[in-house]
Amino acid sequence: MKFQAVKGTRDFYPEEMALRNWLTEAWRRVSLRNGFVEIDGPVLEQLDLFRVKSGQEIVSQLFSFTDRGGRELAMRPEITPTLARMVNARINSLPRPIKWFCIPRLWRAENPQRGRLREFFQWNVDIVGSDDVLADADCIFTAVDFLREVGLGPKDVVVRIGSRTLTTAALRRVGVGDAQMEAALAALDKRPRVKPEAFAEMATAAGVPADRLDEIRRFQDAPDLPAAAEALRGEPQTAEEIQRIESLMTMLQNMGAAEYCRLDMRMVRGLAYYTGIVYEVWDAEDALRAVAGGGRYDNLLEVLGGPKIGATGFGMGDAVLSILLEEKGKLPDVSARLDCFVVDGVGQRFFESVHQYTGKLRELGFKTDYSFKQTSLGRQLKEANRRGARFAVIVLEGPKIGVKDLETGEQTDVPAGEFLAEPGKYLK
Amino acid sequence: MKFQAVKGTRDFYPEEMALRNWLTEAWRRVSLRNGFVEIDGPVLEQLDLFRVKSGQEIVSQLFSFTDRGGRELAMRPEITPTLARMVNARINSLPRPIKWFCIPRLWRAENPQRGRLREFFQWNVDIVGSDDVLADADCIFTAVDFLREVGLGPKDVVVRIGSRTLTTAALRRVGVGDAQMEAALAALDKRPRVKPEAFAEMATAAGVPADRLDEIRRFQDAPDLPAAAEALRGEPQTAEEIQRIESLMTMLQNMGAAEYCRLDMRMVRGLAYYTGIVYEVWDAEDALRAVAGGGRYDNLLEVLGGPKIGATGFGMGDAVLSILLEEKGKLPDVSARLDCFVVDGVGQRFFESVHQYTGKLRELGFKTDYSFKQTSLGRQLKEANRRGARFAVIVLEGPKIGVKDLETGEQTDVPAGEFLAEPGKYLK
Repeated sequence: MKFQAVKGTRDFYPEEMALRNWLTEAWRRVSLRNGFVEIDGPVLEQLDLFRVKSGQEIVSQLFSFTDRGGRELAMRPEITPTLARMVNARINSLPRPIKWFCIPRLWRAENPQRGRLREFFQWNVDIVGSDDVLADADCIFTAVDFLREVGLGPKDVVVRIGSRTLTTAALRRVGVGDAQMEAALAALDKRPRVKPEAFAEMATAAGVPADRLDEIRRFQDAPDLPAAAEALRGEPQTAEEIQRIESLMTMLQNMGAAEYCRLDMRMVRGLAYYTGIVYEVWDAEDALRAVAGGGRYDNLLEVLGGPKIGATGFGMGDAVLSILLEEKGKLPDVSARLDCFVVDGVGQRFFESVHQYTGKLRELGFKTDYSFKQTSLGRQLKEANRRGARFAVIVLEGPKIGVKDLETGEQTDVPAGEFLAEPGKYLK
Repeated sequence: MKFQAVKGTRDFYPEEMALRNWLTEAWRRVSLRNGFVEIDGPVLEQLDLFRVKSGQEIVSQLFSFTDRGGRELAMRPEITPTLARMVNARINSLPRPIKWFCIPRLWRAENPQRGRLREFFQWNVDIVGSDDVLADADCIFTAVDFLREVGLGPKDVVVRIGSRTLTTAALRRVGVGDAQMEAALAALDKRPRVKPEAFAEMATAAGVPADRLDEIRRFQDAPDLPAAAEALRGEPQTAEEIQRIESLMTMLQNMGAAEYCRLDMRMVRGLAYYTGIVYEVWDAEDALRAVAGGGRYDNLLEVLGGPKIGATGFGMGDAVLSILLEEKGKLPDVSARLDCFVVDGVGQRFFESVHQYTGKLRELGFKTDYSFKQTSLGRQLKEANRRGARFAVIVLEGPKIGVKDLETGEQTDVPAGEFLAEPGKYLK
């Protein structure tokens, strides 16, 4: 019986796995240097955790089942509800601000498309316990710090920054009521991805009066913050948010991330729970889906049984990012390499010594292997080359060790005792 | 609404996560230096993949469900079927021997007990494509190399080595037929964990004649290889296996792992698919479950639709291992630490500079943070200490930078330009 991988999942053979580790390590390194600490939760959560956060409709997008104890469980489609649950459980003992990152594997029961898989990884960076726009700036800077780290410049990617607060005010201004607000925001979120007529249809269906759609477009297309403010002139509670966005842009400037960042009031985000500044990372040519997205979600912890407490953060999946990195030629060479390959220098006579040296070198931390085949020197060296070994450690009579540099072909013979006393001297 | 984690799963807060990463990194480092390359598969596989390998009874131990396309899917309870599927899919292009490791997260729908969780991690090390006992030796050495790496000595743990081939011969010798062999092996596997009377009952129920049970005990309790051979005298096909085990012990001796390893014919392993040498790692006091287990499984790839090809390997879970490491005091201090904490030296006047230095230092790779609160120097330094920062980088008039060593309390003031030209000179 022959088996295939499940649709929308990936097998990670050594090369794909090495790239996945490279990406994961870059995410981790950048998170740590930005002062975040790593956490993780279980893959399985109570289905209700996602239902309470996102409503009944989320259930159709999840892999879920009832266990033998009658509990409804789901495979996590995102980490934020878990993070909120974990913060709530220790709300009184965790020093604030809480700066957490994680790299969860996530599942969505969707039809696979380019950049959208049923099983994927997502880097999450969150700050809980600060209402200050400094927290938003810290998250956005961390995203930019990563983009720069992997070689994506401001000509490759752009962080587009919008505001739920201002967008909500713009919608209220044209007559959208509270009951329709979520649907109207969802329509606006889709605008960059659909044709103008389709957008008009969706927006009016969601309660935006047709004759005031131009006002919304004018607000969303504002080239800068004063223009957006002008489009909202006289709206209550917008001045403070405009001030926050101005501070945000100054901070990003001071931290050295401004060249990546651009105000863009078309950024709304799809999920219902955002409350303030929101942003997405896009490839500069708009050819792919968003690489990352996030923003402020000041109500979520309260919804999930905790206190009202400020929170902000973003998620970056591995699927779209990998496509972009490949297109830009930014994926590194990750071929597996050995430090050394221990070789029987006279064919089948020193096989026991080969075992001794192999054991010793591994224990000392050198990536070491040897051939299972007791064969000629030439064949063993061929295997050493195929395995990407830097050096061959050739066991010779004497006892001596021939250290052969497999790049230059140069070989140095040393007495075995000298080699063993300090192998690092020869294997570098 | 307040939520709990699902029974048998774990929340990884920063400290638990740091320990998990420490363990994962040790597994990875040791695997790489032993010449293995990393792979991974999807969490979700077709339910049949596990059913074909382990029979219908496995289904009750899995988390499984039917997706909207009508496919029966399961969350992987082990990685070996996935590994076999992946090897089979590229059987003609993968150079042999295939030396793969992985660190999958696994799920079992069992009742949680000490050392046994519903969601856990397991290090897997496998060599496919070699019938040679060298491959078994390489896997066992890798396990020992890891145990030594994390500070567990031969007084803490022991690798007990048995043989399915010899155990099967011993059972056949006392009259157990092919039809009862699997049940009889399963009974023998349980012997170290049950009372003598319970074992006698299980073994006879599985087809071992009561009056010949002593012969089985004598074989299993053989203190060394000659004694085990003596108990099997005249049995066909045992001489070759005894020779293999002898070679294995010599290789482990030569590689420097023998002090951890002991022959023990009570080792049988629970799973049906083992075919030759098998082994388990136990804590020396036998107080816990097995820390790791593995062996040769030469038929599995064929069962899963591939060719008949030699394979051997082991798995080591994180749950029992973590208990053992904690009991032995071998868990490291993994507190989160920052390289530096940037501080406004005159309180609220240099906040923009704090942002500039923070951005710059992070980009250069220093783990850097600063206080979101614009507050006094003393309070900022307190936060720096709480965050485990090694240095405070204090922005002073001039512009100057005061580099304060937070362990010794010593402070060096340098002109800002000099500091920025080479921060690494001061932060070490």
